[in-house]
Amino acid sequence: MTRLRHFKPAGKAIFKDSHTTKMKELLQQWEPGMTSTFAIAGVPLSKLSISHSGASFAPDAIRAALQSYTTFAGDTGLEFTDNILDFGDIYMDPTDIIGDQQRTYEGLRDVYASEAAKWWMVLGGDHSISYSSIKACSEQYGKVGVIQFDAHHDLRNVEDGGPTNGTPFRRLLEDHVIRGENLVQIGIRDFTNAKEYAKFADEQGVMVYSMQDVDRNSMGRILEKEIDRLEKQVDILYLSVDIDVLDQAFAPGCPAIGPGGMDSKTLLEGIYFASRHEKVKLMDIVEIDPTIDFRNMTSRVAVYCMLNFMKAKKFS
Amino acid sequence: MTRLRHFKPAGKAIFKDSHTTKMKELLQQWEPGMTSTFAIAGVPLSKLSISHSGASFAPDAIRAALQSYTTFAGDTGLEFTDNILDFGDIYMDPTDIIGDQQRTYEGLRDVYASEAAKWWMVLGGDHSISYSSIKACSEQYGKVGVIQFDAHHDLRNVEDGGPTNGTPFRRLLEDHVIRGENLVQIGIRDFTNAKEYAKFADEQGVMVYSMQDVDRNSMGRILEKEIDRLEKQVDILYLSVDIDVLDQAFAPGCPAIGPGGMDSKTLLEGIYFASRHEKVKLMDIVEIDPTIDFRNMTSRVAVYCMLNFMKAKKFS
Amino acid sequence: MTRLRHFKPAGKAIFKDSHTTKMKELLQQWEPGMTSTFAIAGVPLSKLSISHSGASFAPDAIRAALQSYTTFAGDTGLEFTDNILDFGDIYMDPTDIIGDQQRTYEGLRDVYASEAAKWWMVLGGDHSISYSSIKACSEQYGKVGVIQFDAHHDLRNVEDGGPTNGTPFRRLLEDHVIRGENLVQIGIRDFTNAKEYAKFADEQGVMVYSMQDVDRNSMGRILEKEIDRLEKQVDILYLSVDIDVLDQAFAPGCPAIGPGGMDSKTLLEGIYFASRHEKVKLMDIVEIDPTIDFRNMTSRVAVYCMLNFMKAKKFS
Amino acid sequence: MTRLRHFKPAGKAIFKDSHTTKMKELLQQWEPGMTSTFAIAGVPLSKLSISHSGASFAPDAIRAALQSYTTFAGDTGLEFTDNILDFGDIYMDPTDIIGDQQRTYEGLRDVYASEAAKWWMVLGGDHSISYSSIKACSEQYGKVGVIQFDAHHDLRNVEDGGPTNGTPFRRLLEDHVIRGENLVQIGIRDFTNAKEYAKFADEQGVMVYSMQDVDRNSMGRILEKEIDRLEKQVDILYLSVDIDVLDQAFAPGCPAIGPGGMDSKTLLEGIYFASRHEKVKLMDIVEIDPTIDFRNMTSRVAVYCMLNFMKAKKFS
Amino acid sequence: MTRLRHFKPAGKAIFKDSHTTKMKELLQQWEPGMTSTFAIAGVPLSKLSISHSGASFAPDAIRAALQSYTTFAGDTGLEFTDNILDFGDIYMDPTDIIGDQQRTYEGLRDVYASEAAKWWMVLGGDHSISYSSIKACSEQYGKVGVIQFDAHHDLRNVEDGGPTNGTPFRRLLEDHVIRGENLVQIGIRDFTNAKEYAKFADEQGVMVYSMQDVDRNSMGRILEKEIDRLEKQVDILYLSVDIDVLDQAFAPGCPAIGPGGMDSKTLLEGIYFASRHEKVKLMDIVEIDPTIDFRNMTSRVAVYCMLNFMKAKKFS
Amino acid sequence: MTRLRHFKPAGKAIFKDSHTTKMKELLQQWEPGMTSTFAIAGVPLSKLSISHSGASFAPDAIRAALQSYTTFAGDTGLEFTDNILDFGDIYMDPTDIIGDQQRTYEGLRDVYASEAAKWWMVLGGDHSISYSSIKACSEQYGKVGVIQFDAHHDLRNVEDGGPTNGTPFRRLLEDHVIRGENLVQIGIRDFTNAKEYAKFADEQGVMVYSMQDVDRNSMGRILEKEIDRLEKQVDILYLSVDIDVLDQAFAPGCPAIGPGGMDSKTLLEGIYFASRHEKVKLMDIVEIDPTIDFRNMTSRVAVYCMLNFMKAKKFS
Ligand SMILES: [Ca+2]
Ligand SMILES: [Ca+2]
Ligand SMILES: [Ca+2]
Ligand SMILES: [Ca+2]
Ligand SMILES: [Ca+2]
Ligand SMILES: [Ca+2]
Ligand SMILES: [Ca+2]
Ligand SMILES: [Ca+2]
Ligand SMILES: [Ca+2]
Ligand SMILES: [Ca+2]
Ligand SMILES: [Ca+2]
Ligand SMILES: [Ca+2]
Repeated sequence: MTRLRHFKPAGKAIFKDSHTTKMKELLQQWEPGMTSTFAIAGVPLSKLSISHSGASFAPDAIRAALQSYTTFAGDTGLEFTDNILDFGDIYMDPTDIIGDQQRTYEGLRDVYASEAAKWWMVLGGDHSISYSSIKACSEQYGKVGVIQFDAHHDLRNVEDGGPTNGTPFRRLLEDHVIRGENLVQIGIRDFTNAKEYAKFADEQGVMVYSMQDVDRNSMGRILEKEIDRLEKQVDILYLSVDIDVLDQAFAPGCPAIGPGGMDSKTLLEGIYFASRHEKVKLMDIVEIDPTIDFRNMTSRVAVYCMLNFMKAKKFS
Repeated sequence: MTRLRHFKPAGKAIFKDSHTTKMKELLQQWEPGMTSTFAIAGVPLSKLSISHSGASFAPDAIRAALQSYTTFAGDTGLEFTDNILDFGDIYMDPTDIIGDQQRTYEGLRDVYASEAAKWWMVLGGDHSISYSSIKACSEQYGKVGVIQFDAHHDLRNVEDGGPTNGTPFRRLLEDHVIRGENLVQIGIRDFTNAKEYAKFADEQGVMVYSMQDVDRNSMGRILEKEIDRLEKQVDILYLSVDIDVLDQAFAPGCPAIGPGGMDSKTLLEGIYFASRHEKVKLMDIVEIDPTIDFRNMTSRVAVYCMLNFMKAKKFS
Repeated sequence: MTRLRHFKPAGKAIFKDSHTTKMKELLQQWEPGMTSTFAIAGVPLSKLSISHSGASFAPDAIRAALQSYTTFAGDTGLEFTDNILDFGDIYMDPTDIIGDQQRTYEGLRDVYASEAAKWWMVLGGDHSISYSSIKACSEQYGKVGVIQFDAHHDLRNVEDGGPTNGTPFRRLLEDHVIRGENLVQIGIRDFTNAKEYAKFADEQGVMVYSMQDVDRNSMGRILEKEIDRLEKQVDILYLSVDIDVLDQAFAPGCPAIGPGGMDSKTLLEGIYFASRHEKVKLMDIVEIDPTIDFRNMTSRVAVYCMLNFMKAKKFS
Repeated sequence: MTRLRHFKPAGKAIFKDSHTTKMKELLQQWEPGMTSTFAIAGVPLSKLSISHSGASFAPDAIRAALQSYTTFAGDTGLEFTDNILDFGDIYMDPTDIIGDQQRTYEGLRDVYASEAAKWWMVLGGDHSISYSSIKACSEQYGKVGVIQFDAHHDLRNVEDGGPTNGTPFRRLLEDHVIRGENLVQIGIRDFTNAKEYAKFADEQGVMVYSMQDVDRNSMGRILEKEIDRLEKQVDILYLSVDIDVLDQAFAPGCPAIGPGGMDSKTLLEGIYFASRHEKVKLMDIVEIDPTIDFRNMTSRVAVYCMLNFMKAKKFS
Repeated sequence: MTRLRHFKPAGKAIFKDSHTTKMKELLQQWEPGMTSTFAIAGVPLSKLSISHSGASFAPDAIRAALQSYTTFAGDTGLEFTDNILDFGDIYMDPTDIIGDQQRTYEGLRDVYASEAAKWWMVLGGDHSISYSSIKACSEQYGKVGVIQFDAHHDLRNVEDGGPTNGTPFRRLLEDHVIRGENLVQIGIRDFTNAKEYAKFADEQGVMVYSMQDVDRNSMGRILEKEIDRLEKQVDILYLSVDIDVLDQAFAPGCPAIGPGGMDSKTLLEGIYFASRHEKVKLMDIVEIDPTIDFRNMTSRVAVYCMLNFMKAKKFS
Repeated sequence: MTRLRHFKPAGKAIFKDSHTTKMKELLQQWEPGMTSTFAIAGVPLSKLSISHSGASFAPDAIRAALQSYTTFAGDTGLEFTDNILDFGDIYMDPTDIIGDQQRTYEGLRDVYASEAAKWWMVLGGDHSISYSSIKACSEQYGKVGVIQFDAHHDLRNVEDGGPTNGTPFRRLLEDHVIRGENLVQIGIRDFTNAKEYAKFADEQGVMVYSMQDVDRNSMGRILEKEIDRLEKQVDILYLSVDIDVLDQAFAPGCPAIGPGGMDSKTLLEGIYFASRHEKVKLMDIVEIDPTIDFRNMTSRVAVYCMLNFMKAKKFS
C-alpha cells in the first residue's frame, strides 16, 4: 500500500524491530485453497453460559495477545515460520443462541473438511462450544478420544437449563459422539461438582483424575498412561482445555475461578507432553472472560497453551 | 411461599441444577435448640486494625462465596448433607469499638456454651477478634492450644495503640488465657515483625516456625510434631488462620500482603492435616478485606479453608 | 426470630438508627392477597442485548441501593410508610432466551392482573423487556400510551438479529400493541440511530423529541403538551425509562454511554412531572449494567427515578 | 542541601518550570512563632463513620492535590505568595477513637489559640470532626454561626451509635456550643434524612435549604439573606463543607454519593460568595474518601474549595 | 473475500443491522489520488508530555469509538455518506522524540499538501503536536488564526523542559508561525497557569477568555465576536481542542483533570458554532489518555467533537 | 521540630509501635561525607521504553513500600540498624531523553566514586538504565561481570529504535564495557526473543539459561557454577534484576508480563545466594510499572529483592 512518508496504517504496532517476528504476524486470514501446518478458528459464544460470561471476547483477546510473543522458542532453538491460517470467527446471532450452536457445528465441520491445516486450534467462547467442535471433528476424523483439562465434569443434565457450558460432555456421551472410556478428565476439583455427575462419569466409564491425583502422581505419568490406553481405541485425540483447571492465581480471568487448582507450568507441560503424540489433532481453549481478567493474563496463558501445542507438533 | 408462576424471590441465584446442592444452601440460621455438626459465627470487626481495613465485610463475602461451591468432594467421594448452623454476626457499634470486643467475647461464649455444634468456625474480622474468641473458648473447653498460621507474631505491646489486630496473642498470654508453650506460630516471615516481639515469643516459650522452616521441612512434619506435643498438654486445639500467611499471589485481598509467603495448597493441606485430630475443635479465619481483593479470590480461599476443616472432620 | 444477645442475622446492615427507616425496609415480598400502593417486579433479562450486557444484575443492584435512601422527602415533608410489594424476579433460563421473553410477558400479565398495587415499577433488564411488559399492560388496562426516555428509537428491524433490546417499540407497533401516535420518544440523540428508523418513526406517527429539542424547549413543556394530547386517546400512560438517555457523566453504567445526553435532574423532574398525571400507571427502568458501573451510581439514579415516581403519586 | 549533580531528592516532582509556583510549594510546616494569612490542619479521623470510610486519607490526598494547582488566579489576576502554614495532622490512636475526638478538640483549640493565621482551613476526616473543631473555635472566637453545605442534617440521636459522623450538629446544639438559629444547612436532599431529624432541626430553629430550594432560588440569594441575618447575631462564621452535598457526578469519592445533588460550580461560587464576608473565619472540608474516588477527583474539588475560600479572602 | 458459511473475519463487530451504518465504516484508508470531504490523521505522540501520558493511545481509541456512532444526525435529518479518508498515524520512534515532532510536521505538511480533503481533523497525542500541525498548516494555507479550547495557556518557556506539551503556542508565537492577535484562548482556568504566562499572552496580544468569562458571557457570543475579528486578518482558522478544557466530570481521561471546567455541551456547541464558518479548515483534538479514562468516555467526547465539526461543515 | 500536642507532621504514618523500626526509617538522605553499608539511587527513566511504561514511578513506589517492612529478619535473627543512604533520583528532562541517559551515567559515576557505601542498589526505571549504571560501575571498579535475571536477552539492534530498554546489553557488549563471557542471562523465556538475538548472544559468548534450564537444574546450581567461573575473570559482579523474569502471577506490574516464568521464591533465593559472594557489589531492579500493578505487589517484590541482597551481605 502506498502511504505518505512517516505514516503507518492506523492500529498497527508502532515499533518494529527488523529482526523480530511476532506470532501475530504469522496469522493469515484463510482463503479457499490455502493450506498450512496450523489453523485457528474462533467461536465467540458465551450466551449459553450458566453465569454471566464475556468469553465471547476471548478469540479477539487471544489473537491480540499473539502480538506479545515472538516466533522463536529459545530453549529448543525452534523458529516458527509457517503461517497460521485464521478462519475468522463464527457469526453469532444476538438472540438465536441455539442456532449459534448449530452454526458452530456446521462451520467447524466445514473447517475440518477443508483439510487446510494439519493441526487445529479452536478458541472459545465458553465450554458449550466443545460439543459442536467435537461433533464436527468426529465426522471428519472418526472415533475421537478427548482429554479434558477442567475443574468440572461438565456432565450436567440438560433438562435444567438446556445445552449450557455445564453440559457439553454429557451431550457428547448421550448423543454417542464419544464413548465414556474415550473421555479423560484431568484436574477435577473438590466442591465444584455434584455427586450425581461424578456417578454419571463413573457409570459411563469416563476416566477422572482429581486435582489431588495430579498432585500425588504427575501430569506426565497420567497422560502417558491414558494416551497409551486411548491410542489403541480412537482415531484421533482432542485436547479440550478449560482454563479454569488452573488455580485462580494463574488464571484470574475465568468465570469460575477458585483456589486449589493447577499451576500454569503443569498445564503447559501437560499440553506439550500430550501434543507430541501424533494422534492429537486438535485443541480447544475455553472459558476465558477478558472483561473480568487482570491485564489479559488469562489470554496470555491461552497463547502459551497454543504455543506449547505448536512446539510439540514441530518436534513430534 | 406462594408466588406467581415464572417468578423467583429477589436475590436468589437464578439457575438451579436439580442435582447440585451449593454449600450455601446448607447454611441454616440458628435458632435455639438446633444442633448440627458444624456451626459458624461472624465477627465483622475491623475498626481495631492498625491500618485501614474492610475486614468487617469478610463474613458476608465468605458466606456469599459459599454459593460458588458444591457439597461434594469428589477426590474422596464425600458428600456434605448436614446443615451448617449460622449464628449470624456480632452486632458492631459504630463508635464503641472496645465494647465491640467485649460483646464479641460474650457473644461467642454464649455460642460455644450452646453446644449447638461439634465444631466451630469463626469468620473475622481482623485478628483482634481471636482474643475474644479464644478467651470464650477457654472458658468453655478448658486449656487451649493454638496453632496460628500467620506472617506475624501479633505479640505487639498494648501500650502503643491499644488492643489492635497486632496484639491478640500478647494479650492472651499476658491475661493467662493461654500459655506460651501452647501457642504454635507457623509461617512467620522475615521483615514483618520486630525483634522485640520475636524475643518475647521466645521468652514465653511460643513455638515459632518461620516461612523458611515450612519450606525446609514440610507443613505435615511440623504439624505432626507440634500436635503430638500439644495434645498431651491441652484440652482442645484452636486453629487461627490469618490469611496473610499466604503469599500475595494467592491472597491478594489481605491488608498486609507481601511476597515470600505460603502457597494456598500448603495452607489447605495444613488445615486438613491438623483438623483430622480430634482435639481440634475450632478454627477462625481472619484478615480478609473484600474491598481491596481481586474478584473475591481471598474469600474463596477462606471457603476452601472451611471446606478442608470440614472434610477432615468427616474423616477423623 | 430468637437469637443470642449481641448477634444480628448475617447480611443485614449493622447500624440501625431508631428514627430512620430505609426505603429497602418498605420492600415486602408479595404473597397472594396482599395489596398496597406500589409494587415492583424484576426482569433480569439481558441476554437479548445486541452488545454484551450485565443488565440482568440491575434488579438486585437497585433493590440493594434502596438501602441507601430513607423514606422521607424533606423538601415536601412527605414520609413514605406503605409497603412496596416485591413480586420478585422472573426466572430466566440459561439458554431458552426467547422463552424468557414469553415468560416475562406471562409473569407480568399475572402481576398486573393481581391488582395488588395501584402503581407499578418494573426493573429491567435490557430494553427488550418493555415489549413484554407493555403487551401485558395493554391486556390489563386497554389502550396504552408510552412516554419513552431514550437516546435511541429502539425501532430496529427484527430480521437482522431477532427480538433484541433494539427492537421493542418496533415490535409493539407492528404487533399493534400500541399505535404510533401513542408513542412519545424523548431525548433521542444524534449519531445513535439509523435514518431508516427515524423515517419509520415518522411514518408511524411516533412523536420524537431530540435531545436538542429538550435543551431548546424544556422537559416540562414537552411533557405537558404530549400528556395533554395523549390523555384523550389512551386509557393509561406507561413511562419507559432507558437510563442511557442520560449523559455518560450522570449514568456511567449503561452499555451505550455517550456525551451529549440529559443531566439527571432534567430526567428526574420529567418523571416527577409526568407521574403526577393520574393516567400514568407504570414505569419501567432499563439498561443499567451494574458490572460496568462506577460505585453503583447508575442504580442510584434508578432509585431516584423510582422515588420521584412515587413522590409524584403521593401528590397527584 | 548539597547533592550530586543531576540528582534531586526522592519524592519531589521531577519537572520544575522556573516561572511556575505550585500551591503545594506555599505549604510551610508551622513552627512556634510563625504567622501568615492562611493555615491548615488535618484531622484524619474516620473510624467514627457509620459506614466504612477511608476519609482519614483525605488530608494527605488534598495536600498532594495542591501540587496540581498554581498560585495564580488568572480571571482576577490574583497571585498568591504568602505561605500557607501547615500544622500537620492530629495523631489518631488505632483503638481509642473517642479519645481521638477529644484530642482533635484540644489540638484545634491550641491551633486557633496560636493566632498564627488570619483564616483557617480544617481538612477532615469525616463530619464527626466538625464537632471538635467548632467547639474549639467557639472558645477562641465567641458566638459561632455555621453555614453547613450538606446533603444530610447530621442531627442523628447519639444514643443509637455514639458520636458518629451523623451527629456533629446534634451534639453542638445539645451541648449549647451553637444555637439553632445560628445554623444554616444548605443542599439537604430528599430521601437521605429521617423525618424526626428534620423535625428536630425545625424545633431548634435551624434554617434548612433543600437542594430544590437551591435550584429554585440561587445559592447567592440564599447566602446573602442568611449572612445578613447571621452577621448580627454571631461573632464569627464557620463554613462546614460536606462534599457529599455535590451530585455523585462531581464528587464520586464520598462515602454517601447519590444523584440529585449540587454541581461543583454552584458550591464553589457559594464558598467564594460567603467567604468574602469578613466574619467568615474558618472552613472545614469533610467526607472525602480517597480510597474509593476516581483519579482523586473529589480531593481536587476540595482544593478548589480551599482556593475559592482563599481568593475571596484576598478580595474581601 | 471468500469465506466459509457462518464465518466472519476476526475482530469485526458481530452484529450488523442492515439499515445502520456506523461512522467507523466511513473510514477509508487513504491511498494516493483519493479525495473526499473529510480526512483524519493520527499523531500518537505523548512522550513530550510533562507528566506521564498515554495520549499516544488516543488515535486508536477514538477510531474505535467511531464504531459506537451512526452516520445519522436525527435532529437535523443529516446523513453522512462520504468516506472519511484516514491517512493513518505518524510513525513514532521509541527514543528520537524530537525527531518525532519533526516527522509530524513533515508528515502533516504532506497531508495538507495532498489536497485530498476539504476539511481535516488531527487526532493527538498531547498538545505538543499542535505546533507541528499548525506550522504545516500555515505553509499550506497562509496566515492561520487559532481558536484554542484549553484550561491552560500552553505558553511555557522552552528552556526549562524543551518543546513539551506546555509550550506549543509559545513556540508558534516565537517562531512567527502565528501572531498573538490571531490566537484566541477559551476556557483558561484559575490556578492552572503561571502569572508569567498570562503576562506573556497579554504582551503578545493573545485574546484570552477565562472559564468565568465563558460562564458570564456565552460561548456563542465569544466565538461570534472573535471570528468576526479574525476572519478579516487570517486566511484560515484552526480549532485546537484540548479536551482538558472540560470539567473532570465530563472528561475523566485527561492527564490534567480538575473541577471548575466547561460542560461538554458548551464545548460541542462551540465547535459546531465555529465550524459553520467557512474559514475553519482544521481541528485537532488532544490530551486524551485512554489508559486512565473510565469506559473510554473521553474518547467518546472526542468523537462528538469530530461529529459536530462535520455536521457544521455540512450546513455551512 | 516543635509541634503542638496531639499533632504529627503531615504525610507520616500515624501509628508508631515503639519497638518496631520500619525499613523506610533507615533511609537517610545522603549528604557529602556520609558513609554507610548500603546506599540506593533512583533512576526514574522510562521514556526510552519500547512500550508505554510508567517505570519512572518505581523508585518512589519502592521507597514507599519499604514502610511496610521491618528491620528484623526473624529466620536468622538478623536486625538491620545501619542507615541506608539515599542519593535521591536522577533528574529527568521531559524531552531530552537521550541526555537523561547521559546524566544517569554521570550521576551514577559520581555516586560510585563517592565510596559512600560498601554495596549499592539502583532502582529503575526501565532496563535501559542498566547501560548507564554498568558503564559507570566499570569505570569505578574495573572488569564487571553481570548476572542478569530476565525473560529477555535485551540484545536488540540499536538501529531500529535507538537505545531503548531492549538494547542495554547489546550496547554494553558493542561498546566493550563488558565482555560476552562475563554476561550470564538467567530465566530467558520462549517466544519473548528473536532468534537473531539468541544467535548474537551465542556468538558473543554470553551464557544463557532458559527458564526451562532453571526448572530442570536449580537456581542454586546454576549460580554456583557461573559465579565460580566469573570470579576468576572479573573484578566485581553486578546483579541486574528485571522483575519480568517472574511469572505474571507473582509480578503483575511489569510492562511485559506473561506466564511460564519464575516464582518469586526462586528469584529471591537466587539473589540471596549470589549476593553472599563478596564480589557482588551492586544490584539494580528494573521494569516495575506501578501504574499498572495490583496493590503495589511488584514493588513489594522489589523490596524483598533488596532485603535479600542486604541479608546476604550481612552474612557474607
Ligand atoms: Ca468446562
Ligand atoms: Ca470448568
Ligand atoms: Ca495476625
Ligand atoms: Ca498477619
Ligand atoms: Ca432503549
Ligand atoms: Ca437506549
Ligand atoms: Ca455531613
Ligand atoms: Ca453528608
Ligand atoms: Ca493544552
Ligand atoms: Ca490543557
Ligand atoms: Ca530486560
Ligand atoms: Ca525483560
